Amino acid sequence: MIPVRGYAAQDAKSPLAPFNFERREPGPDDVQFDVQYCGICHSDLHQARDEWGGSIFPMVPGHEIIGRVTRVGANVKKFKVGDSVGVGCMVDTCRTCHACKQGLQQYCERGPTYTYNSRERESQQPTQGGYSSALVVDQAYVLRVPENLDPAAAAPLLCAGITTWSPLKHWNVKAGQRVGVVGLGGLGHMGVKFARAFGAHVIVFSHTDKKKQDALRLGAHEVVVSSNEAEMKAREGTLDFVLDTVSAPHDINAYLRLLRIDGSLVLVGVPEKPLPVQPFALIGQRRNFSGSSIGGIQETQDMLDFCGEHGVVSDVEVIPIQQVNDAYTRLLKGDVKYRFVIDMKSLK
Amino acid sequence: MIPVRGYAAQDAKSPLAPFNFERREPGPDDVQFDVQYCGICHSDLHQARDEWGGSIFPMVPGHEIIGRVTRVGANVKKFKVGDSVGVGCMVDTCRTCHACKQGLQQYCERGPTYTYNSRERESQQPTQGGYSSALVVDQAYVLRVPENLDPAAAAPLLCAGITTWSPLKHWNVKAGQRVGVVGLGGLGHMGVKFARAFGAHVIVFSHTDKKKQDALRLGAHEVVVSSNEAEMKAREGTLDFVLDTVSAPHDINAYLRLLRIDGSLVLVGVPEKPLPVQPFALIGQRRNFSGSSIGGIQETQDMLDFCGEHGVVSDVEVIPIQQVNDAYTRLLKGDVKYRFVIDMKSLK
Repeated sequence: MIPVRGYAAQDAKSPLAPFNFERREPGPDDVQFDVQYCGICHSDLHQARDEWGGSIFPMVPGHEIIGRVTRVGANVKKFKVGDSVGVGCMVDTCRTCHACKQGLQQYCERGPTYTYNSRERESQQPTQGGYSSALVVDQAYVLRVPENLDPAAAAPLLCAGITTWSPLKHWNVKAGQRVGVVGLGGLGHMGVKFARAFGAHVIVFSHTDKKKQDALRLGAHEVVVSSNEAEMKAREGTLDFVLDTVSAPHDINAYLRLLRIDGSLVLVGVPEKPLPVQPFALIGQRRNFSGSSIGGIQETQDMLDFCGEHGVVSDVEVIPIQQVNDAYTRLLKGDVKYRFVIDMKSLK
Repeated sequence: MIPVRGYAAQDAKSPLAPFNFERREPGPDDVQFDVQYCGICHSDLHQARDEWGGSIFPMVPGHEIIGRVTRVGANVKKFKVGDSVGVGCMVDTCRTCHACKQGLQQYCERGPTYTYNSRERESQQPTQGGYSSALVVDQAYVLRVPENLDPAAAAPLLCAGITTWSPLKHWNVKAGQRVGVVGLGGLGHMGVKFARAFGAHVIVFSHTDKKKQDALRLGAHEVVVSSNEAEMKAREGTLDFVLDTVSAPHDINAYLRLLRIDGSLVLVGVPEKPLPVQPFALIGQRRNFSGSSIGGIQETQDMLDFCGEHGVVSDVEVIPIQQVNDAYTRLLKGDVKYRFVIDMKSLK
């Protein structure tokens, strides 16, 4: 077994604290790597506090993981020692269902094995995430990270990046289109960067004007304060696509009405309570309200390759792991621009 | 002016009663026709009782209209005296907006001129519908009705038919797919007929099992009582498309969960209150919740031609116009299989 250091939640009420554990000895298809950086996703906090139910403790969170390969199994041809690699939200899926065969592993019919707070498919051992010194992951779920990207700023691509990339690609957002991004947090700021990179006219919708200059700097062409009824009204029926990254309760109808005929609003935030949808907001212009979850493995690789070519990364605040509990507190207040990333050197 | 007899609501509280009025003298592009049959749509009742607000009285309802041409304007080449014609929900639109130019007149950016309870675009005169002896309509909004169809049973195609045809066609429902139809009323029974005619495996979802034999007779392969949790659960993630025709409050999430990855649920009923959507019902399998309204003019002609070729019509109960108020009462109880159609001979 491989001894590993990390930070874990021992139960739903305790702060994260140092935790030593073991990972499996790499098999023939496994890649072992030392973690350099791991992003902090809002879902880390939800799961560490068991807010979605069913959490497995002790839990080492983290699914925005960048590292360098230290060992590969006999069957591993895609990676060699020293390579820069990434792991996102999944470390395994059934590989045989219709979804997996289409490269849509995130929708695996038998459910993905998540990077943490999940169980390995055969051993049923709990998986443990990237707030740790090293990982052992099957090569089929390991991504190649372009060497020209800052690894700290690349870490959030593995969740915040792919979660916004996937719907923008699936719904074919492109030059000449008008695209709204609702919410400017970890997901939203990546949505702005990608939509801009794809050539769209990008409008950020925010509940205050505090982030206006930031939104413009990140690539938005316009910023609309969502409480400004006149500005919202003026944009009704004008957008081809809306990416909704908000997890707080919000009036989805106000954003649906922004869409043109056949336009789509895609939710990637996960509000806890149901969102009331006015039938006529959909029927009146044959609009679509859809949802999207992370992305497939090949799609994630495509995104990383694109980011390497176009120099796209996340805006991050790098912290030592000793500050992870403070970071969670700040995350709840929205006090981060735009993603906390743990420098794993601080573990030593 | 053309003298016309009909039945009108004089205000929101009064039953429909005989009403004599005038229509415009046909212009060069107009078709004048005697009404043979007119279907009764639930929206007739809503509007006659001003339940959606803004009703214009006196109001002659009716937008599922079949008749025979009695006179054509100088520019009319498509129709001649004696032709069997139909008029649906619209008698004019702006003809210049993006939607109109795409043949999506139902989504006209300036709003369609509806067949009744609307105003003519130039004269601003109220439009009056098909519970009447004759209509005068611009040829661009008049449909050709195949002579082999029973005109009484063809009348509901102009609204109930096209409202279900349009989404089934737009979302490309076809052989090999599994399609759910929620609700078996005027819309639902046409959805079943069309989905079956397109080669799909059709499953009707109904809140009771009273309509089971009827659903099978209409073309359904299976009938599921929506309160049967085990039967609903067994079908989760198995449908490509769901056509939701229900206007009463209902749990939309139960039907969203029936969809496979990338499946679409399209609402054509118009529930009065917002429908609460659980984010995960969409996100978990990249599902789509959409809405659709009637259909375009060419699309309606395509549907009528298809119905002529395949012998598809509505199941109707033909009534004299003197029973229209009783029919409204029965409609509210769901006591009709599956559409009331007024025989306009009864007006004489």
